[in-house]
Amino acid sequence: MPDTIRAAVLSLGTEITSGIIKDTHGSFLGSELTALGLQVDRICQMSDEPHIIPAVRDLTARHQLLVITGGLGPTSDDLTREAIAEAAGISLVFDPELWERLKESFDLSKAEANRKQAIVPEGFHVVPNPNGTAPGIWGRVGDCLVCAMPGPPRELEPMFRDAIRGIISGEMGLTPLKELEASCFLIPEAMLEDVCKSHDDGTVRWRTRFQQYRISLYLAGGDVHRRRKYLEALKKSFGSQLVREGNFEAAFLVYEALRAQGKVLATAESCTGGMIGSMLTDIPGISEHYWGGFVTYANRAKAEELRIDPGLIDTQGAVSEEVALEMARGALSRAGVDISVAVSGVAGPGGGSPNKPVGTVWIAVATAEGNARAWRFDFGSRRSIIRRRAAVAALLLVELMLREPQRLDIVSHWHYS
Amino acid sequence: MPDTIRAAVLSLGTEITSGIIKDTHGSFLGSELTALGLQVDRICQMSDEPHIIPAVRDLTARHQLLVITGGLGPTSDDLTREAIAEAAGISLVFDPELWERLKESFDLSKAEANRKQAIVPEGFHVVPNPNGTAPGIWGRVGDCLVCAMPGPPRELEPMFRDAIRGIISGEMGLTPLKELEASCFLIPEAMLEDVCKSHDDGTVRWRTRFQQYRISLYLAGGDVHRRRKYLEALKKSFGSQLVREGNFEAAFLVYEALRAQGKVLATAESCTGGMIGSMLTDIPGISEHYWGGFVTYANRAKAEELRIDPGLIDTQGAVSEEVALEMARGALSRAGVDISVAVSGVAGPGGGSPNKPVGTVWIAVATAEGNARAWRFDFGSRRSIIRRRAAVAALLLVELMLREPQRLDIVSHWHYS
Repeated sequence: MPDTIRAAVLSLGTEITSGIIKDTHGSFLGSELTALGLQVDRICQMSDEPHIIPAVRDLTARHQLLVITGGLGPTSDDLTREAIAEAAGISLVFDPELWERLKESFDLSKAEANRKQAIVPEGFHVVPNPNGTAPGIWGRVGDCLVCAMPGPPRELEPMFRDAIRGIISGEMGLTPLKELEASCFLIPEAMLEDVCKSHDDGTVRWRTRFQQYRISLYLAGGDVHRRRKYLEALKKSFGSQLVREGNFEAAFLVYEALRAQGKVLATAESCTGGMIGSMLTDIPGISEHYWGGFVTYANRAKAEELRIDPGLIDTQGAVSEEVALEMARGALSRAGVDISVAVSGVAGPGGGSPNKPVGTVWIAVATAEGNARAWRFDFGSRRSIIRRRAAVAALLLVELMLREPQRLDIVSHWHYS
Repeated sequence: MPDTIRAAVLSLGTEITSGIIKDTHGSFLGSELTALGLQVDRICQMSDEPHIIPAVRDLTARHQLLVITGGLGPTSDDLTREAIAEAAGISLVFDPELWERLKESFDLSKAEANRKQAIVPEGFHVVPNPNGTAPGIWGRVGDCLVCAMPGPPRELEPMFRDAIRGIISGEMGLTPLKELEASCFLIPEAMLEDVCKSHDDGTVRWRTRFQQYRISLYLAGGDVHRRRKYLEALKKSFGSQLVREGNFEAAFLVYEALRAQGKVLATAESCTGGMIGSMLTDIPGISEHYWGGFVTYANRAKAEELRIDPGLIDTQGAVSEEVALEMARGALSRAGVDISVAVSGVAGPGGGSPNKPVGTVWIAVATAEGNARAWRFDFGSRRSIIRRRAAVAALLLVELMLREPQRLDIVSHWHYS
C-alpha cells in the first residue's frame, strides 16, 4: 500500500451550481475513491465558464488524482478538453479513428456537431462510452492523473465502474479495499453513526448510504476478521435482525422466507395505508407468494372488510393489541393464506393520547397453524418516519415468524430508538 | 439591480468528501443563492484539514460572497474561524457575552468544550442558532462578504432562511427574485427540461427539484406576466392537469376534491400494490374521505375480493379495460363509497407480450352515479417508474372525474412520454 494519495473531484455544469439539478457525482465518487483507499481532499462543482481553466491547473498541482465530470459535450461551454490541455501545456488533437467510431454509433445528420468529441488532449487515452456520445479521456498533467468522464449519471457511473476505477487502481498501484456490506433496518441515522463511532478502533472504516427504507453500511479496511467482528458488535448493539450482512430490502427477506417455505402472505394495513403492499410488490415475481391485502384505513373498513366487531374498536381503540390481532386473523381467513400481518398505529400529527401517544404502533402476525402474536412499538413523532418504520418492522416480524417462531421474544431487545 | 454578483459555497467535512454522508448544502444553497439573483460560480466540499485556510483566502479573493458550512463546532478539526481570521489577517476574540448565552442554553457539564464556540473573528457578527450549539458568523474579508453556518441541515436551513438570506440581501442591496412554483406530474425529467429550454426567452429562469412522485418547477425573473405566460406555455405543451401552479402532491389534489364534495374514495390496486393507498394516507386527516382499499395482486385476490368473474380474467387478461372496470366497480360496491379507482398493469420486467408490452397499464374510475371509464397508458420500461407513474395517473384521474367529469377526453392529450 503506498502513502496517502490525495484526490480531488471537479464536476462542471451551471445547472448544478444554480440548483437546477442536484450534484450526485460528489457523493458517488467520494465514496468510490475512498473505497479505493484514496484520501479525497476536495469535491468542487463549478459553472461552465473559462474560470475552470485556472481551477484545473490549481487542482492538478495540488493533488495526485483529479476526476472531472461533465464538460465533454459538443457545445462551446464544454471546456474540459481545453482546460486539461491548457493546464498540461499540450495541444488538442483530432483523432480520426475515434471520429469514425463515433460517426458509426450516432445519427449522421447530427454527427457534425459531435466532431468536437473526437478531439483529445495530446497523449491522452480514450474510454468508450456505451451509454452516450461523449467518450471519457485520461492521462497525466504533470504528476497528476486526470480522468474525465461525461456528466450524465447513467453514462458516468458505468464508465467509472467498468473502466476508470481499474485505470486508477492500475496507475496508482492500488489494491482496492475489500468491503463488507450490511443492510440496517429501523435504526435512526444518528444512532447508527454514534454506535459505529463507538466501535471504531481505527482499522475498519465505515460509511453509510441512506435509502428510503434502510441504511446501507459499508465496512472497509482492516482484515476480514476485523470487519466481521465489527459487524457482530453492531448486531449485538441493535439486534441481529436489524443489522444484516448483504444488500437487500426488508421486503426481499420476506419474499425469500415465503419462497423457501412455499407460503402465501396477506396484509391488513391501517396507518401504513398500503405501504407494505407497495414494498412487497416492488419485487418482480412475488405474486405467487403475496395474495394481496386490505387497506382498512377508516374504522368502517376494518369492520366491513376484516369483520372486526365495531364494539371491540370502540372499547379498545383501533390502535390496540386486540384490534391488531383481529385484523391479522381477519386477513388470514378472508384471504385463505398461510400467514398475515396487520398494522394499526397513531401516525399523527393528531390523534395521540397520553396512553397512546403519536408514534404508538401495534403490529400483529397470525399464521394458519393458529400462531398469533402482537407487539407494541414507539416509532417517534414524525408521520412519514412512523409509517416507514411501521412498514419495515411489519416485514421483519413476518420474516421472524416464518424463520424463527420460537424466538419471537427477541423483538423486545431490538434497539431502534 | 446591481451587476452580476459572483458567489461561492464551501462545505467542510471529511464525512462528506469520503462519502459517509451526502452533501445537501450545495444544491440547497446553489438554488437559494440563484433565487436571490446571484451567480454561483463554484460549490466545494473539502475535508477538515488545514488546507482549507488557503482555500478560504483564494475563494474570498475571487468572489464577492462566500458561504461556508460546517467547521464551527468545538473540536480541533473545526477550522472555519481560524481560516476566516487567517484569510482576513484579523485575530480571533473571545466573546464573553456570547459565552454566557451559550452556557445558559446548554448543559454546563459539557459547556467547557463549547468555549471555542464563543470565539469569533474580530469584527464579525454572531447569528443565534436556535437548533444547536454553534452560532453562525458573518463579516467581511476584504471586499468579500463571508457568512459561515453550522453544518447540520436542521440547523443550517432555518438559519439561512431566517437570518443569513436577509443579511446577504441587505449587504448586497438585492431584491430577491419573485418565483412562481409549479408541480409537474408524470412528465419525465429530460422531457420537462427540453420543453423548458425550448420556451426559454432569456427573461424567465427555471430550475427543477425532483421529488419522489413529481417534479417541482420554479420560475424566477422576468415579471409576473412573463412567468405566468411561461407556465401557460408549459401547460399547453403537457396538458393543464400535468402542470399545476403551487406546491402539492397528486394525492393532495384528490383529498381537496373529495373534501370539497364531501365524498369518499376506495382503491383497488394490482400492479401498484398499495402505493396509491400509501400516498393518500400520507395526508393526515384523510380518513373521512378515504375508506381504504383492496390490494388484489394475485388474480385469485381479484376474483375473491372484488368478485370478478375468473373467466373474464382468463379471456381478457388481468391487464385489460374490462378487468380494470370490473375492479373499480367491485371496489365501489364492496366499500359502498362514492368513487373508486382501479389499476392493473404490466410492471415488468417479465409478463409483457406484443399486445401488452411491459409498461401497459389500465386505470379505471367508477362513481356511485354509474359513471365508469378506463384509460390505457404506456409508462415505459422500468418497473419502479411504471408503478409510480401509474399511481400518480390514477390520482389525477380521480380528481378529473370529480372536478370535470365532462372533460374526461382530455386525457388523450396528456403529453408524458
